[in-house]
Amino acid sequence: MTLFVYAHLDERARALVRAGVPDAVFVDKTTAGPAEQARFAEAEMCFGNVPAPWLSGPLALRWLQLESVGFEYYRGIAMPGVQVTNLKGMFAEPTAETALAGLLALYRGIEELAGARLERRWIGLALRERMGLLAGRRALVCGLGSIGARIRALLLAFGCEVAAFARTAPDADLRTLAEVDAALGRFEIVVNALPSTPETANLFDAARLARFAPGAVFVNVGRGSAADEEALIAALESGALGGAVLDVFRQEPLPPDHPLWRMPRTIVTQHTGGGYDDELVDKTRFFLGNLARFRAGEPLLNPVDLARGY
Amino acid sequence: MTLFVYAHLDERARALVRAGVPDAVFVDKTTAGPAEQARFAEAEMCFGNVPAPWLSGPLALRWLQLESVGFEYYRGIAMPGVQVTNLKGMFAEPTAETALAGLLALYRGIEELAGARLERRWIGLALRERMGLLAGRRALVCGLGSIGARIRALLLAFGCEVAAFARTAPDADLRTLAEVDAALGRFEIVVNALPSTPETANLFDAARLARFAPGAVFVNVGRGSAADEEALIAALESGALGGAVLDVFRQEPLPPDHPLWRMPRTIVTQHTGGGYDDELVDKTRFFLGNLARFRAGEPLLNPVDLARGY
Repeated sequence: MTLFVYAHLDERARALVRAGVPDAVFVDKTTAGPAEQARFAEAEMCFGNVPAPWLSGPLALRWLQLESVGFEYYRGIAMPGVQVTNLKGMFAEPTAETALAGLLALYRGIEELAGARLERRWIGLALRERMGLLAGRRALVCGLGSIGARIRALLLAFGCEVAAFARTAPDADLRTLAEVDAALGRFEIVVNALPSTPETANLFDAARLARFAPGAVFVNVGRGSAADEEALIAALESGALGGAVLDVFRQEPLPPDHPLWRMPRTIVTQHTGGGYDDELVDKTRFFLGNLARFRAGEPLLNPVDLARGY
Repeated sequence: MTLFVYAHLDERARALVRAGVPDAVFVDKTTAGPAEQARFAEAEMCFGNVPAPWLSGPLALRWLQLESVGFEYYRGIAMPGVQVTNLKGMFAEPTAETALAGLLALYRGIEELAGARLERRWIGLALRERMGLLAGRRALVCGLGSIGARIRALLLAFGCEVAAFARTAPDADLRTLAEVDAALGRFEIVVNALPSTPETANLFDAARLARFAPGAVFVNVGRGSAADEEALIAALESGALGGAVLDVFRQEPLPPDHPLWRMPRTIVTQHTGGGYDDELVDKTRFFLGNLARFRAGEPLLNPVDLARGY
């Protein structure tokens, strides 16, 4: 069986793959074209998120290991007989840490201190009176996948009062958007950790942002499509929103002339939420664990329904 | 009885004091001289940290409410019959949040992202591979006062393995410097939250810093006097230390030409650790609570031994 590797890997991670699959076919995503697509069509196993169009037409594929959690760009693609697995859970810890890093940076003045450091300017005493505490804040976490659940646990550890919105999770406090809308005005922090689905597209539109408590902070570690960015910009500029921590955007990389680069009280983490030094090795280890299961005919970890898109 | 107010207060806090003590004497610390010292000598109650020399000579003083936790600059001053109270515990939450904000900023690239934001430069994919996780780190917290204890609890919530050094706290893991020295090489994070005492002066000298694990991160939210700053600079410049979060310094404000302004991988939080928007009101509320106890002849909260200095 041929393994086609389309994942973003570094040399350490590629060496791990080679140790497990000496004849693996590695492809450079940035230059892949019709020749690579033809080789993919002959491979029984694939590690990495190939372009959606490659998934139509006759394929030898039996197992696709995605290198991400989200895969909304494959929505509606049905591949009978092909097992698909994702990396659910692998990004929970780093993404939750980035969400908390951003929130604490806002409350504890870290960006302003970074700027003052470059200018060697002591602003300590003046800054103290403008600082806030995360402790005791009322927070809403939208989404109780592994990321949302981890963010909720960390906010609770900081002494926040946390409510969660999720349609099906048994431990959610709010289950419908009507319940969210009725409660939104109570929260000082609103975190989006929902997947990208037709239901979450534009969830944070102008009308919903207008229901936020004055000065509330919005954190988006879900998908950029969940927020109306123009409405977000207006709310940040007017001061209606007290701040934002934005990891995801409708267009990534964020274009240089995009207004979200220069919003006040906004931490832009550039979709680094899931990242960490051993990320590529760890995702390769997950793939190799699933490979052993695949070869042994055992059930794979993290099976997903590609057509559903999340 | 006269109340002499020497504390740093804002208008809201002063109004609270006046509501409780209409004839309170407020003094501007920045211009106080011999006339103010003479009025202090006649006051039975004082709120604020007057200059140490004012405490010698005949005084009417019966109660001194400090506006800080530390008071090492009064060490050796004995005032028989004068009750002295501090603000122990009030800065635990903000200082612990600043310590965590700094650590997460280091691991999650927040300073680098702040710089990139100013230049509207998307560095996300490249940065991911240089990021780290706080989760799972082995950390040593030195000092188990309210600040150290809170930092330990938060590090545990992030999944760190935490050991604590304290001479007397019943839940300390290490009780002597010999034990610390033997264990230092195991820790990826070392937090100083010790008070300033003769024993903690220069605790983190060149020899002890040399025992740190390669790439360890040093956090100082205790006192600047605990660290040999020249040794710290050398360790940061050489890369022996993986980073630092520094809230306190030997000289504050840090002079503009001080090398600690321009160390790599170093978050300088400018002694804002204890600060937050309601800080001055909260410390005034604490004072007023103790004032009610003082007037009723009840035991005061947070009594300290001024002569001991911590």
